[in-house]
Amino acid sequence: MTQVYWQDGMHNRKAVFEVYFRKLPFHNGFAVFAGLEHVIRFLHGFRFSESDLDYLREDGYSDGFLEYLRTLRFTGTLRSMKEGEIVFANEPMMRIEAPLAEAQLIETAILNIVNYQTLIATKAARIKQVVGEELSMEFGTRRAQEMDAAIWGTRAAYLAGFEATSNVRAGKLFGIPVAGTHAHSMVQAYRDEYKAFAKYAETHKDCVFLVDTYDTLNSGVPNAIKVANEFGGRINFLGIRLDSGDLAFLSKEARRMLDAAGYPNAKIYASNDLDEQTIINLKAQGAKIDVWGIGTKLITAYDQPALGAVYKLIAIEDENGSMADTIKISSNPEKISTPGLKRVYRIVNQTSGKSEGDYIALEHEEPQNEERLHMFHPVHTYLSKYATGFEARELHHAIFENGSLVYQIPSLYEIREFVKANLNVLWDEYKRTLNPAEYPVSLSQACWDNKMRRIEEVRTKVKISMA
Amino acid sequence: MTQVYWQDGMHNRKAVFEVYFRKLPFHNGFAVFAGLEHVIRFLHGFRFSESDLDYLREDGYSDGFLEYLRTLRFTGTLRSMKEGEIVFANEPMMRIEAPLAEAQLIETAILNIVNYQTLIATKAARIKQVVGEELSMEFGTRRAQEMDAAIWGTRAAYLAGFEATSNVRAGKLFGIPVAGTHAHSMVQAYRDEYKAFAKYAETHKDCVFLVDTYDTLNSGVPNAIKVANEFGGRINFLGIRLDSGDLAFLSKEARRMLDAAGYPNAKIYASNDLDEQTIINLKAQGAKIDVWGIGTKLITAYDQPALGAVYKLIAIEDENGSMADTIKISSNPEKISTPGLKRVYRIVNQTSGKSEGDYIALEHEEPQNEERLHMFHPVHTYLSKYATGFEARELHHAIFENGSLVYQIPSLYEIREFVKANLNVLWDEYKRTLNPAEYPVSLSQACWDNKMRRIEEVRTKVKISMA
Repeated sequence: MTQVYWQDGMHNRKAVFEVYFRKLPFHNGFAVFAGLEHVIRFLHGFRFSESDLDYLREDGYSDGFLEYLRTLRFTGTLRSMKEGEIVFANEPMMRIEAPLAEAQLIETAILNIVNYQTLIATKAARIKQVVGEELSMEFGTRRAQEMDAAIWGTRAAYLAGFEATSNVRAGKLFGIPVAGTHAHSMVQAYRDEYKAFAKYAETHKDCVFLVDTYDTLNSGVPNAIKVANEFGGRINFLGIRLDSGDLAFLSKEARRMLDAAGYPNAKIYASNDLDEQTIINLKAQGAKIDVWGIGTKLITAYDQPALGAVYKLIAIEDENGSMADTIKISSNPEKISTPGLKRVYRIVNQTSGKSEGDYIALEHEEPQNEERLHMFHPVHTYLSKYATGFEARELHHAIFENGSLVYQIPSLYEIREFVKANLNVLWDEYKRTLNPAEYPVSLSQACWDNKMRRIEEVRTKVKISMA
Repeated sequence: MTQVYWQDGMHNRKAVFEVYFRKLPFHNGFAVFAGLEHVIRFLHGFRFSESDLDYLREDGYSDGFLEYLRTLRFTGTLRSMKEGEIVFANEPMMRIEAPLAEAQLIETAILNIVNYQTLIATKAARIKQVVGEELSMEFGTRRAQEMDAAIWGTRAAYLAGFEATSNVRAGKLFGIPVAGTHAHSMVQAYRDEYKAFAKYAETHKDCVFLVDTYDTLNSGVPNAIKVANEFGGRINFLGIRLDSGDLAFLSKEARRMLDAAGYPNAKIYASNDLDEQTIINLKAQGAKIDVWGIGTKLITAYDQPALGAVYKLIAIEDENGSMADTIKISSNPEKISTPGLKRVYRIVNQTSGKSEGDYIALEHEEPQNEERLHMFHPVHTYLSKYATGFEARELHHAIFENGSLVYQIPSLYEIREFVKANLNVLWDEYKRTLNPAEYPVSLSQACWDNKMRRIEEVRTKVKISMA
């Protein structure tokens, strides 16, 4: 495609693409946008290496075209939500304005990054809604879909509210707190559980003992208590970890044993294919679990392992140098794109501090200057309301301008705080994990009218060309 | 854990770990082992960098221990199935014999690699069972779980039988054939479908036109035919691609139109969230699809995005320098490990050339020398049979010996041929996608007896220590 554009002299026409998904994952009421930092790194380093060009040459591409690719860099403008922004279906998360060829060549990488990281941040936020104030740790590296997923997925989980990870490399790369316990194999290596715990206590001030290698209640917990008693103040007996069996029953029994032995502050860590469903059920059964280790179900987004974000052309420069809106029609109505340059606003009620919904307007509109904002459902248009006394917070920020990075990348700590603040703006009804209320995302009247006009234009054109 | 071992002088004790999964994914009748090449690269490059050591130093690890890590390399022995081997539940895919600390430090990376690549190779083989002789192309990069998954997942799909990928980087790295079509955005960029197809035809000898940007049957297919007519012999009109709507209906209508226009050899490509279920249904409806583009559902293994492979200690050197078997007990019976050094054999009937099942024996046993081999179910032990006139093919091969690579890495072409040959050894009953027969995997009597003895030992020990 890029070669078509280049050969036809189209490659430098200005094109505008948007990144959005059509459906919230996990039947959740919201999503958490993530992936911007990796996208920035990617665009910053975007170029074809000599070996890339050699490969393409063997594949038959022309010398002139390869020469063009050799010096190609990202020279476009990127506007994006900040990482940690709350996002809903059919809202542009990013907008890329760049020469057509560039915008097209970066598509797949951007989708790959944003799709996965937004998915995991959303899953983590969803799990965190159920975990509440207790601690949740990311434990999924061995089940992640290859190495990048382990690293970036851990970061996404942490920014959305997880407190720690067992992935030491992610700890090094991003400064995420690293936590974990020893494995069953350590107990097996010593071929004696008591001895293994004691050896661990000799080298670790902070001790969490994994108690289910042989028999949790008859061997693991008693051995942990025995070692805690013997080492006394020489260690911090943080607690025990359960990794199999009936976690509800075992945690209650273990709690009773720890309390009776004088360790009411020792925590019970649990892991074993946990997700928001099992956690909510364990809590309903009164399980005594203080720290949740979440692996496979989080890092792979097990119940929906892909977010369907797409990258759609919304406007392009025409022969005369002016911008023309573009649309993609489909017999699947939800696949029809919304044409034109747009901005996304969160409409926050100034009295309650809570959001009334989001509002997608055309570039030139100024909803913040409206007294009464007409918000209506973009499909069921009779569902409508008027907002007053609101602040219209624009959700996009300038990241690259004409190829230059103009954005100060925030720290992970700042992103975590940003997520918390953003979630506070949402009513609880949108945040529950089962049957959340549908958050209103409106098109402005002008945006909606423009979409209808473009659909009609295409229909007419198709009819004419077939006549 | 490694620090515990090092401080206690345990780190150089010889340890043996096995990699296996407990349950076949997707209710499939078999799995295809993959990931060895990436594991080899990982072990080859395994070391701690200065920045790794700096990070660990800040985290409080001692200078002596860090000095030990600085020079650490993989010095162990790896025996493994070859990539493309057919594997079943509870069979060791790999066996690692190494100093305890080394074996432990490489665990997570090995599981991460083998879990994902075996999962995707299995999913691809499963889809290929349904696709049959038609072509299948991997189209999933934008939905893969970050970048490594796109690259290694594509390779896994190709080795298990896919014919091409749209991922150009995977094409470059592994020599996988690259194929694809233009996108909707090209039609949008020209704001005229006919013009877009014509421009594509001007620069591409081989043309596949994506026909659903506006209206498949009223615009897309007629424009494709018009361009094919006009360009005549100057292009190879390979066909059209459908990416939305009712693929069964549209493909039949498009076939009729192409045939009527004199293009009976133009192929119909289809994509849009396809997997083995949709393919089997489309075929049942008589859909006229020649080439299947499979994206999201393959590259994420959508219906089961994680394989639960584990890494279990099966033997360790004791204080006196002799090897002792180890076991992990669990209240979940399927989580009890099988202790001791073992070998895996495929028992192939010399008359039919088909497999009778797999046979896991202790290291010293020689099933190939037995006249009659007693094969029994390792859980329902009354299910048993005797094999005669068989060849016992050992499935493990030496990869590393004392840290040296002793294995000649095969080409991807050889691996693909190996998969085909391996699948030919399986009766069809194990290969159907719905309710496949359970393939027999037996423990030898000696292996089973050893496992029972170790369980009893642990039970006695736990009872005594609690007395």
